[in-house]
Amino acid sequence: MWRELLPIGRDARSGGYRRFAWTGADAECREWFRAQAASRGLTYEVDRNGNQWAWLGDPAAGDAVVTGSHLDSVPDGGAFDGPLGVVSSFAALDELRTRGAVPTRPLAIVNFGDEEGARFGLACVGSRLTAGQLTPAQAAELRDADGISLPQAMERAGHDPEAIGPDPERLARIGAFVELHVEQGRALDLSGDPVGVASAIWPHGRWRFDFHGEANHAGTTRLEDRRDPMLTYANTVLAARKKARLAGALATFGKVAVEPNGVNAIPSLVRGWLDSRAADEPTLAAVVEEIERAATERGERDGVQVRVTRESFTPVVEFEHALRDEVASLLSAADRPVPVLPTGAGHDAGILSASVPTAMLFVRNPTGVSHSPAERAAEDDCLAGVLALADVLEGLACR
Amino acid sequence: MWRELLPIGRDARSGGYRRFAWTGADAECREWFRAQAASRGLTYEVDRNGNQWAWLGDPAAGDAVVTGSHLDSVPDGGAFDGPLGVVSSFAALDELRTRGAVPTRPLAIVNFGDEEGARFGLACVGSRLTAGQLTPAQAAELRDADGISLPQAMERAGHDPEAIGPDPERLARIGAFVELHVEQGRALDLSGDPVGVASAIWPHGRWRFDFHGEANHAGTTRLEDRRDPMLTYANTVLAARKKARLAGALATFGKVAVEPNGVNAIPSLVRGWLDSRAADEPTLAAVVEEIERAATERGERDGVQVRVTRESFTPVVEFEHALRDEVASLLSAADRPVPVLPTGAGHDAGILSASVPTAMLFVRNPTGVSHSPAERAAEDDCLAGVLALADVLEGLACR
Repeated sequence: MWRELLPIGRDARSGGYRRFAWTGADAECREWFRAQAASRGLTYEVDRNGNQWAWLGDPAAGDAVVTGSHLDSVPDGGAFDGPLGVVSSFAALDELRTRGAVPTRPLAIVNFGDEEGARFGLACVGSRLTAGQLTPAQAAELRDADGISLPQAMERAGHDPEAIGPDPERLARIGAFVELHVEQGRALDLSGDPVGVASAIWPHGRWRFDFHGEANHAGTTRLEDRRDPMLTYANTVLAARKKARLAGALATFGKVAVEPNGVNAIPSLVRGWLDSRAADEPTLAAVVEEIERAATERGERDGVQVRVTRESFTPVVEFEHALRDEVASLLSAADRPVPVLPTGAGHDAGILSASVPTAMLFVRNPTGVSHSPAERAAEDDCLAGVLALADVLEGLACR
Repeated sequence: MWRELLPIGRDARSGGYRRFAWTGADAECREWFRAQAASRGLTYEVDRNGNQWAWLGDPAAGDAVVTGSHLDSVPDGGAFDGPLGVVSSFAALDELRTRGAVPTRPLAIVNFGDEEGARFGLACVGSRLTAGQLTPAQAAELRDADGISLPQAMERAGHDPEAIGPDPERLARIGAFVELHVEQGRALDLSGDPVGVASAIWPHGRWRFDFHGEANHAGTTRLEDRRDPMLTYANTVLAARKKARLAGALATFGKVAVEPNGVNAIPSLVRGWLDSRAADEPTLAAVVEEIERAATERGERDGVQVRVTRESFTPVVEFEHALRDEVASLLSAADRPVPVLPTGAGHDAGILSASVPTAMLFVRNPTGVSHSPAERAAEDDCLAGVLALADVLEGLACR
């Protein structure tokens, strides 16, 4: 299964994946999903928002148990973030069949579209649309770097953009959603466990910082005559790290755009994107406010105007305690006890948790490295993940 | 004359110019030059390196007086940097004819190709090739952001790339080169003079700093597990400013490239370009060395590897004292005394000064702003520049 998926959308130079929503690489991944469903005799369908579903049993019966994840990637992403959950879902279904377990509830595997938001800048577009957390009008405003809108991209990929919108009937048929995902951190590595269960997703958001200075010649403008926004940006990057460290939070500037971006030109504009997360919302708000204040204060010294725009914000997600506890006790009963841990990363499971009971399993990541070609999970741990997911599906759907 | 040139290559959004070498906007500027030469009955030719010449008199007679500048621009550059020198050259020739001055030496106006280096990353390509300071083999290695090489770009623009190379016969025919340029600083504004004469060009260079860290998920990687090259870059930007200030030099990071440049990804690589200049070479070397040391020290703390590559270096240029003094005394005799001042900006005149006697005139820039749509020169000062250039050409070539 892995073998067919691994070469798709892989960049020969970096070794990383470039599987962006509604591109050719994405279409190949989706065709792989369709073929996996067909080879198992599952009923295949694409919902109005382009998410793919493979059903065992009748969806209309309701109270379904759904598992799955996503197949798209960040730029130069790793092989596991997303695909591990989808591959493990098919493998867990195979394991159930090997065990002779017979589902008494409908079972489905899902591939949510555009989870990473690498192309249109917003994460979890497929699950957000389905859950009504993104309106069709908002989705129509999303554009990629070439100015192509999400509906245009969908249409070019053969999906009817007129169909997109909330899908409460579909959600109403789901009794439980369980997403398996490679851990994006080292908590399981530090605790020595191959698999864990999620307690919560930290609140997180993206803020765009625009530093407006004045373009000028780098070789002739006296330092005291400059309004150089690169200085303000640099100071803000260091301030963000410091404020996050003091608050036990996370703050990262990973994306920058500079105008005019010439070697001998003082920039007129430096645009930096802040990603920040914390265990609770008041802490997160305080950290971002402190970073903003540091930027503004330095901007006054540099003659640089600072504008901050919140581009996205996701409140804290506490996974439903009843399902989380049931998952944990199913695994204990199967002699696979697992720790319960929070995560800083957003997931489709976080979006769905507002609508249906949702749980997450994490598979150990020995380096914690993610969103990088160096992302890894050991084969034994991946197998342990499949068996744990099979235990959960068996416990939830086959009794 | 200005009116036809002003709209070419102008970006409607920024109001700045994007006249990059061997592009369509460049071709339009070149056609403008050809038409100006033709309308004055001058003999037009393009040399082997693509520089344009307009001759009054027989080039073969030797000991020619040449004036001119360049028509290309930086990204979102101003209207004056380059074009003011070319337009003033034609206007000064018109003024000589109005005065009835008859040249006794050949006179030429030149437009040097690719002065800014905005497309291929190296400044003064046209004059460097002619002066033998850039070999055809080195030129063949230059590539633009789309991977198009300089010879390919030349060929597409209709110029034979096989012809490029040093042109000593052409240089041997030049007795003096005088370039007029808008000042890129405020020295004339501070001294209250409309026109000045250049004493020297500061030594300057470009260094590429590669900060190699480790890509990772911005939402899940503990701060202490990160190797974030953005931190090292930010610290280096601030260190560069400080070291330059202490040494009375200039240091600027105006261009950055980040990989993968995703909002939720710690970068694997941040690449920043340093432009640095100082009054003398030992000071410049010391400043760059201190910046490099600061980068390496901070890199060790961040787990980031720093590699520094010198991409270009131009030693100090002292303009020939005899010609400089003659230019100054011609202007004093014409009742237009001018101050003598250094500049931090490189020019074709700096390249040619190694081969032929060279002088530069500067026209006042009231804000000092350059390489920006806000670049300005007052109409009266531009006229003063034309009259001063006419005085110099008359004094050198018509006696």
